[in-house]
Amino acid sequence: MSAKPLILVTNDDGISSKGIRSLVEVARFFGDVLVLAPDKPQSGMGHAITVNHPLRLDKSILFEGLNAYTCTGTPVDCVKLAIYEVLNRKPDLLLSGINHGENTSTNILYSGTMSAAVEGAMENIPSIGFSLADFHADADFRATQLVAQELIANALKGDYPEHVCLNVNVPKGTPEELKGIKVCKQAYGFWEDRFDKRLDQFNKPYYWLTGEFTDHDKSEDSDLYAMRQGYASVVPTQFDMTCYKTMNFFKTWEK
Amino acid sequence: MSAKPLILVTNDDGISSKGIRSLVEVARFFGDVLVLAPDKPQSGMGHAITVNHPLRLDKSILFEGLNAYTCTGTPVDCVKLAIYEVLNRKPDLLLSGINHGENTSTNILYSGTMSAAVEGAMENIPSIGFSLADFHADADFRATQLVAQELIANALKGDYPEHVCLNVNVPKGTPEELKGIKVCKQAYGFWEDRFDKRLDQFNKPYYWLTGEFTDHDKSEDSDLYAMRQGYASVVPTQFDMTCYKTMNFFKTWEK
Repeated sequence: MSAKPLILVTNDDGISSKGIRSLVEVARFFGDVLVLAPDKPQSGMGHAITVNHPLRLDKSILFEGLNAYTCTGTPVDCVKLAIYEVLNRKPDLLLSGINHGENTSTNILYSGTMSAAVEGAMENIPSIGFSLADFHADADFRATQLVAQELIANALKGDYPEHVCLNVNVPKGTPEELKGIKVCKQAYGFWEDRFDKRLDQFNKPYYWLTGEFTDHDKSEDSDLYAMRQGYASVVPTQFDMTCYKTMNFFKTWEK
Repeated sequence: MSAKPLILVTNDDGISSKGIRSLVEVARFFGDVLVLAPDKPQSGMGHAITVNHPLRLDKSILFEGLNAYTCTGTPVDCVKLAIYEVLNRKPDLLLSGINHGENTSTNILYSGTMSAAVEGAMENIPSIGFSLADFHADADFRATQLVAQELIANALKGDYPEHVCLNVNVPKGTPEELKGIKVCKQAYGFWEDRFDKRLDQFNKPYYWLTGEFTDHDKSEDSDLYAMRQGYASVVPTQFDMTCYKTMNFFKTWEK
């Protein structure tokens, strides 16, 4: 048995994206890598799991010299399949991404990349989701690779806290342009959605989800603020969604 | 224009389920109801949104005398379509459910029912997700209807706090068996997953996600505890996932 750490790598853009390839390049310096990623893009899948259909799991030849699989499910399905079917143990580290496009602020809730990392936190595995603020298929991931190298080294030191994962976002640009790494809180921001309504060949309407993201956060310790200043943002992320500050208000509704 | 409150009702089991029908029966006493729900079961979809496909939106005849639509998307898509395409305004109240099956503890992350309510909270609409601990298609929703009646009346009083929704779970049983309503925190519990591996007609494997849920929470103020005592649990729920207690630890990783 190897003494190297076992590192699970997944993503939501699918196994053939440049983002996961860039992350695996870094991860393999640190340990034995298992890649298990969706066979197609799964952006916006959030914490979805596949309960009404069965899943397929297939070997992938895309990562030479590595153990790699694709599955037909979501990023969270990938994490569950890796732990409970392929490895039959928990990896020492879970990495997700690098996402093509940023996942700052409340976008964490829609993000398949980050939901895989949150699932890792639920399994008590040190977990990091990486996103680059660039949607291009051939984006420059070098700055994110440097950030990943730094954070992976820290995460493997052995003192990583329990049941927490990291939401890491990196601004578009070269490694030289990156100002540094800042630990932040999730910014308070929302989508002002709209739908692009079009007509099909039978004159029946269909709708594309679109919109503008609005930052409602005035504070200087948010991930959006750090990103605007040219820093990579790191948000420690947990999964207790209880709103403790309104508990007393709602207690008056008890029966 | 009506002075009645405008109430949006959605779910994740699909528009033809008994759960949403039971919730609409209660909601229509309180205001003008718009139903916009998925055209098929969307359990386990979490906070997924549809970004890589267009959506269809169709009138439904299932709710006599009401404005009702189905869409091809997820519960969160339904909320967005209702606000930004059908209503062109925010409803005064958003109700989701009644889910066939409970959504206590960390199941909130996987739940389409609750993700619709969380989306409502992000839109700053008073929002409540209801779930009954009974998977039956013909489950007895009367106890949950009573709880809904109580909570909807409170939510419409005008002093509902900002950016918070409620995760309401009701134990299986008759209205007489229900002990009351308790405001709780989200219990600390997890799935011990496993996959049921089967072989298809070509001897190729496929996998069904299954598992056991384990309650790791010893406290008496959790939703799981309240449910086990025979109470309906109400967890005030927010969407800032920042892990504030580990911020100082991770600050040492800054560069």
